Amino acid sequence: MYQSMNLSVSSNFTHRSLLESRFPIFSTGFRKSVNLKPPRVSSGPESNDSGHETLTDKLIHLLRAVPDWADEIKERGMQQKRSLYTHEKWVEHRSSLRHVRHLLSSFSSRVILSLIPPVFFFTSVAVVIASYNSAVALDWLPGIFPILRSSSLPYQLTAPALALLLVFRTEASYSRYEEGRKAWVGIIAGTNDLARQVICSVDSSGDELIIKDLLLRYIAAFPVALKCHVIYGSDIARDLRNLIEADDLSLILQAKHRPRCVIEFISQSIQLLKLDDAKRDLLESKMLHLHEGIGVCEQLMGIPIPLSYTRLTSRFLVFWHLTLPIILWDECHWIVVPATFISAASLFCIEEVLCPPPPPYLPSFA
Amino acid sequence: MYQSMNLSVSSNFTHRSLLESRFPIFSTGFRKSVNLKPPRVSSGPESNDSGHETLTDKLIHLLRAVPDWADEIKERGMQQKRSLYTHEKWVEHRSSLRHVRHLLSSFSSRVILSLIPPVFFFTSVAVVIASYNSAVALDWLPGIFPILRSSSLPYQLTAPALALLLVFRTEASYSRYEEGRKAWVGIIAGTNDLARQVICSVDSSGDELIIKDLLLRYIAAFPVALKCHVIYGSDIARDLRNLIEADDLSLILQAKHRPRCVIEFISQSIQLLKLDDAKRDLLESKMLHLHEGIGVCEQLMGIPIPLSYTRLTSRFLVFWHLTLPIILWDECHWIVVPATFISAASLFCIEEVLCPPPPPYLPSFA
Amino acid sequence: MYQSMNLSVSSNFTHRSLLESRFPIFSTGFRKSVNLKPPRVSSGPESNDSGHETLTDKLIHLLRAVPDWADEIKERGMQQKRSLYTHEKWVEHRSSLRHVRHLLSSFSSRVILSLIPPVFFFTSVAVVIASYNSAVALDWLPGIFPILRSSSLPYQLTAPALALLLVFRTEASYSRYEEGRKAWVGIIAGTNDLARQVICSVDSSGDELIIKDLLLRYIAAFPVALKCHVIYGSDIARDLRNLIEADDLSLILQAKHRPRCVIEFISQSIQLLKLDDAKRDLLESKMLHLHEGIGVCEQLMGIPIPLSYTRLTSRFLVFWHLTLPIILWDECHWIVVPATFISAASLFCIEEVLCPPPPPYLPSFA
Amino acid sequence: MYQSMNLSVSSNFTHRSLLESRFPIFSTGFRKSVNLKPPRVSSGPESNDSGHETLTDKLIHLLRAVPDWADEIKERGMQQKRSLYTHEKWVEHRSSLRHVRHLLSSFSSRVILSLIPPVFFFTSVAVVIASYNSAVALDWLPGIFPILRSSSLPYQLTAPALALLLVFRTEASYSRYEEGRKAWVGIIAGTNDLARQVICSVDSSGDELIIKDLLLRYIAAFPVALKCHVIYGSDIARDLRNLIEADDLSLILQAKHRPRCVIEFISQSIQLLKLDDAKRDLLESKMLHLHEGIGVCEQLMGIPIPLSYTRLTSRFLVFWHLTLPIILWDECHWIVVPATFISAASLFCIEEVLCPPPPPYLPSFA
Amino acid sequence: MYQSMNLSVSSNFTHRSLLESRFPIFSTGFRKSVNLKPPRVSSGPESNDSGHETLTDKLIHLLRAVPDWADEIKERGMQQKRSLYTHEKWVEHRSSLRHVRHLLSSFSSRVILSLIPPVFFFTSVAVVIASYNSAVALDWLPGIFPILRSSSLPYQLTAPALALLLVFRTEASYSRYEEGRKAWVGIIAGTNDLARQVICSVDSSGDELIIKDLLLRYIAAFPVALKCHVIYGSDIARDLRNLIEADDLSLILQAKHRPRCVIEFISQSIQLLKLDDAKRDLLESKMLHLHEGIGVCEQLMGIPIPLSYTRLTSRFLVFWHLTLPIILWDECHWIVVPATFISAASLFCIEEVLCPPPPPYLPSFA
Repeated sequence: MYQSMNLSVSSNFTHRSLLESRFPIFSTGFRKSVNLKPPRVSSGPESNDSGHETLTDKLIHLLRAVPDWADEIKERGMQQKRSLYTHEKWVEHRSSLRHVRHLLSSFSSRVILSLIPPVFFFTSVAVVIASYNSAVALDWLPGIFPILRSSSLPYQLTAPALALLLVFRTEASYSRYEEGRKAWVGIIAGTNDLARQVICSVDSSGDELIIKDLLLRYIAAFPVALKCHVIYGSDIARDLRNLIEADDLSLILQAKHRPRCVIEFISQSIQLLKLDDAKRDLLESKMLHLHEGIGVCEQLMGIPIPLSYTRLTSRFLVFWHLTLPIILWDECHWIVVPATFISAASLFCIEEVLCPPPPPYLPSFA
Repeated sequence: MYQSMNLSVSSNFTHRSLLESRFPIFSTGFRKSVNLKPPRVSSGPESNDSGHETLTDKLIHLLRAVPDWADEIKERGMQQKRSLYTHEKWVEHRSSLRHVRHLLSSFSSRVILSLIPPVFFFTSVAVVIASYNSAVALDWLPGIFPILRSSSLPYQLTAPALALLLVFRTEASYSRYEEGRKAWVGIIAGTNDLARQVICSVDSSGDELIIKDLLLRYIAAFPVALKCHVIYGSDIARDLRNLIEADDLSLILQAKHRPRCVIEFISQSIQLLKLDDAKRDLLESKMLHLHEGIGVCEQLMGIPIPLSYTRLTSRFLVFWHLTLPIILWDECHWIVVPATFISAASLFCIEEVLCPPPPPYLPSFA
Repeated sequence: MYQSMNLSVSSNFTHRSLLESRFPIFSTGFRKSVNLKPPRVSSGPESNDSGHETLTDKLIHLLRAVPDWADEIKERGMQQKRSLYTHEKWVEHRSSLRHVRHLLSSFSSRVILSLIPPVFFFTSVAVVIASYNSAVALDWLPGIFPILRSSSLPYQLTAPALALLLVFRTEASYSRYEEGRKAWVGIIAGTNDLARQVICSVDSSGDELIIKDLLLRYIAAFPVALKCHVIYGSDIARDLRNLIEADDLSLILQAKHRPRCVIEFISQSIQLLKLDDAKRDLLESKMLHLHEGIGVCEQLMGIPIPLSYTRLTSRFLVFWHLTLPIILWDECHWIVVPATFISAASLFCIEEVLCPPPPPYLPSFA
Repeated sequence: MYQSMNLSVSSNFTHRSLLESRFPIFSTGFRKSVNLKPPRVSSGPESNDSGHETLTDKLIHLLRAVPDWADEIKERGMQQKRSLYTHEKWVEHRSSLRHVRHLLSSFSSRVILSLIPPVFFFTSVAVVIASYNSAVALDWLPGIFPILRSSSLPYQLTAPALALLLVFRTEASYSRYEEGRKAWVGIIAGTNDLARQVICSVDSSGDELIIKDLLLRYIAAFPVALKCHVIYGSDIARDLRNLIEADDLSLILQAKHRPRCVIEFISQSIQLLKLDDAKRDLLESKMLHLHEGIGVCEQLMGIPIPLSYTRLTSRFLVFWHLTLPIILWDECHWIVVPATFISAASLFCIEEVLCPPPPPYLPSFA
Repeated sequence: MYQSMNLSVSSNFTHRSLLESRFPIFSTGFRKSVNLKPPRVSSGPESNDSGHETLTDKLIHLLRAVPDWADEIKERGMQQKRSLYTHEKWVEHRSSLRHVRHLLSSFSSRVILSLIPPVFFFTSVAVVIASYNSAVALDWLPGIFPILRSSSLPYQLTAPALALLLVFRTEASYSRYEEGRKAWVGIIAGTNDLARQVICSVDSSGDELIIKDLLLRYIAAFPVALKCHVIYGSDIARDLRNLIEADDLSLILQAKHRPRCVIEFISQSIQLLKLDDAKRDLLESKMLHLHEGIGVCEQLMGIPIPLSYTRLTSRFLVFWHLTLPIILWDECHWIVVPATFISAASLFCIEEVLCPPPPPYLPSFA
């Protein structure tokens, strides 16, 4: 019986692969765009557009050294496992000492480290402008060089817009995070409910018991397969080793779309169980929740916040901080340097936090 | 069998067309409003209301040259295919170097290019006002001409309202974008689930197999047909060529409402399958999700953000920037020119980004 | 057969009317509150509370002339048909020239025209205050009259609250608009799905065909009836003439609640069809969506944004603009007049747009 | 038959009361907390914590006279019936004259009247501080008394936070209001749909007719019972008199949880009808919507916006206005009095409107 | 019968435990992370990272004394039972005297007490800086020490961003609170509906009656078990003692996941009832709501607001207040001390309220 089921799954799978070859929408679409050019090739920087070379080259050479190091730390930090909060962690989390803890952890924080390049750059620009202005003020330069200064009024009028833009982008990222979290509630509740119904409905006798056991394993494998599908650098073979037998596992590994392959396994196993039709339809109907879970996760990963929105915020911030030392010169003189540092640290931090959020919007535990 | 099914679909379709001719609501409503006057006829500009000609003509002649070029680039940019994000693209997307990349891509950005006309215009106005004020200050003009200047207090009091208005409009556009994205999750999950249930339920023997195969093709065709229905300049014939046979395709192409026609095909095919009633009802009940998907997409395309809201923001912005140089003159003098430039670039950019968003709120991949 | 069905519908309807007479909740509740005093009786103004007559009378006489004209234009503009947006309209909608178009259409804009009374009033008040202050400054008045001036600090501290209040009220209105739009998606998708299921399920033979045809007409009539129920000044008889036969139409016209009467017709027709019980229950269960559609539309029409909220914003705005010239006098002198004009135009425009939105939150097309 | 049904309902009810005595969760939980100390005992004020008596006593004696009068008016205003808006009311509601109307109704407004105590208090404080400062400035006091004044900068930095806090709290209240409104849509649509299905399904012959009639009455009674359950000071006996017969009514009145008792009646009556099982299950399944309606209404009533949030806003406001005259003294001198008045009136009004909203979040009509 | 059922539940449970041992996802995952290091060990403070000892030690010693006391009070306050609001409590809640009440309760408020450590610390810093600056100004220090002062412009530009960040974080916490509240509506409505259906469906005869009674007890036990699962320091044994018999209770207490164990009991009991299949499936299908309820509650407890977001706000606040006395020195001199006190009290209060909210987002009553 066991063999025959496995066979039927495989044979049916052959049919399915045929199907897929004709319906590229269903499962291949999400792998197609991988073969882009590698994201960060260390040899050839992005200075191909030779029109703006003077500014471009300077920017690239200044920024190139630090950001690669910062990015590496950031990416490593993202793949750390995070555990679920318990009552004890909550007590610690809301302790009055949390502000001290947060301050102390600043220098090991992934977000803060990734801020070093832009903050360092804009602080340097502020130093340059302050030096230049001091030189002019002290008549060290020919009289033709003007002091770079301006009224702060235009900045005061646009500051609320910038703040709103930054914070609303953070909100948009947060709501994507929440969407992932809620999709995951649905997936876990759906698989739990399915497992419970299978346990209740199937009478545990003979062959049925084997299929039921397999089916429960497939159901338990689904969230794991989906998690591995959406989290970068997951090892699905290792995570499923104890749950799924080797034959099935190799089928899953070969599948074009692994979570859908697991759904296929679940679906096939339900067909093999001796159930009355209404019950089988009921169990089948649960599968829609799983498909929706896949859909939400894949869209969150596949479709970022519209690029025009992200870029607008980025450009607005860069432009703002490039000119900030000029705006502040009259009021602050050399204090423009710490002021630019504080402003860049604060605002780029708001922009960074959550904003290009990790592709796995899902918690990294299943 | 295959022929007979096709016949039955067509014959039934005849009935349906009859139905439609009486129920124009169901399918013709969305094509009716196409035969409006063409949107931009290059010969006759919109200056028919001859009451305000002096200002109107000046504005039109100043603006007419650049915006047509800018709009063309913008529209071309909108029809580019965007691919789904992968883990690798996310690593690049959140790299510290993104700010440099965004800055460098400013000059090729669709959003930025479409900002050229208004920003150029308001900067010119600022130059004119600054020149006039300088001329008055230098006594080059008769004493009767006053310097155009004003207190900035009224602007400081209304600046938060303008910022909020702009950013909330961006939010409204973004939530429409998200609504489209979520509708698309539902459509993809719905079609996947339907396909899976069809594969499981139908035993693959003889005639059934042919209908089943056809049915799966129709199901796969639905998202494609819907995508082509809502994306401007799509070629549905080309996209469905490999999926649907020529006879069916020509029926779809002739249909008044193509996605609903595909639903009709799916529905007819389900009737032809040998299924027990409960199962057939189950499959039929999935169709509601597809109808809802059509509904959301068509409403997003058919009903923009209320025009009064859009226009308010636009007028507020124009008015604000026309008078900004006067407000800033006392504090900034000739710096009003860069200040107006920066303010117009920032705020019109917030207004432009997402705001009159592309009709296909859906990602351009199915 | 046809006759008999009609009879059964009518006879059952008699039963239903009996029911209604006992259950006033179900259908009469929404007509009860019509017989209020007519909203604007031109003869007797609202100055019955004779306590505050001096201020009241002045205000009424100043405002009475213009607003009636403005309101009339506004109401007429609201009943214009708006067509659904097409791809071509979107191209125009997002063209760079839209700012020019919006500026030119300012003087024919419904929203702008309805702003004339308050903006005109507050500008006049500014003129009065500025004249008085100038007179005092020029010693034209006895020394006992003080110059009306004040520090702007209290205004600077409350300006963000006013801006937030205005913009959030706009958001609240917009979300009601969106709720109506989404309810309408549900209604259209529901009726389409119901119609499709009826077409598929009923075999087209003899008597059944007639009932089926009638049923489809009733289904198509539902959105029309609901639209007419919620849009002011609709002519349901004209809109349904081609869809529903005269006998049924007169029954609908006499019904206390027309959309529910159409649901009743649909429900009765489904009972008459020869269907197995499961199928009939399935079709019946769709009716809940239609009831929900009615519920959302009626609540949006029947329950405005809480009056205390609406009034707070209105009073805050009026109070703010009455004292604005005093606040600005020191900084702006006679520029208080254009400043008050700009501020009133901007902020009352935000308050007006969408805010007391047209009762038909639904798009005026079905 | 009728008698027997009534009997069976009662007998079953006996069983249910037994059940309840063991499951206090289901119905008694919501009455338990009533026997708190009465909210406002006019004799003993809340000054039991004798530690802060000097300030406390002063505050209490100042505030005690006016607020009781204001609260009484407010509570009375809340129990007024509000009728649903009609097209005619909407025309009036969006008329340009609404600003005049709102201004004139200020002095009879429930919200405004309830503002009198705090606004009066803070204006008095401003008078006291201004008098003291004037006395010091005029050297009427020994030189040791300093002028109470301060820089306004800290206030300018925290003003946006206060404004955001106030407006977001208003938003939170508004979204509770909307939640109640939407729950009510669901309840009305659910009962209408249930009534329609009962009318359609049950053939009107003999005994069935009596049960059907009773069932429809129970269904119609449900929204009334729920309304009375959540609106303070409702008289359920009067409202249900015409709908429910005396025997049943007395059972409902004795029930621990009246809306659930009505659901019980509906449920029992459905069991008594001669229906096939599928139909009965369908009707039964509708009851979940009614339970959800109860759940939403009871939670909205039972769980206010978190008290820490409400209190934070209240304390922030009080503290802000107590020190406002000191902050404004340098810039405004005696104008601190009207300035404090305006600020307190505006901001406490934002805090008051909707904020501790009436327990019946539901419209007061069923 | 009763015995046999209990046996079957237990025996089945054995099977389930076997299952769980293989599927750690289902139930063990949420206990795994408990064995972290204890959150606050009073002996060894967190100063293990010896790199920053000078600053760290100072901060820790300053802060350590007070916060432990404050945290203890806070935690104790959180476990207080809160009762549902009644009409009488609402009258009190919206009384005009609430501002007095809130002010008086300030010193016993859990939120306020937990603010003492940071507010005290930053006020001390302000005192130190003000003393230093005074000393410099009075030439008590060598001329090499500069006065610590700066322009406030950078703070004015970033103040809106900080305010938005704080208030949006409050909003995020509030929406989690609301999510918990709504999940609880679903759980209560679901269990009530399930209980009602069981009462109606099962005919009360002989053995059935015993199972039915047990089943109703299990259903009533579910919300209690879930409440105890998510509220810190609950005593499930005491709460369930009167509801569940000792044998079952000990099984529940031993279960790895108690609420799921209760669902298991419910599910098993439904299987034992003599019901037709459709009815049993209907009852079974309700279990999904309960699983979803568990899912929402566990995720709210297990996954806090992203730490990067929480930390950003905390660091921004700390940094801002450390430098605030420097910013304000020029304008306020010694008033920087009360100004810093007010600013810290206001902004840390916004940060504290709701923000690391208690793990039981659910109301503490079932």
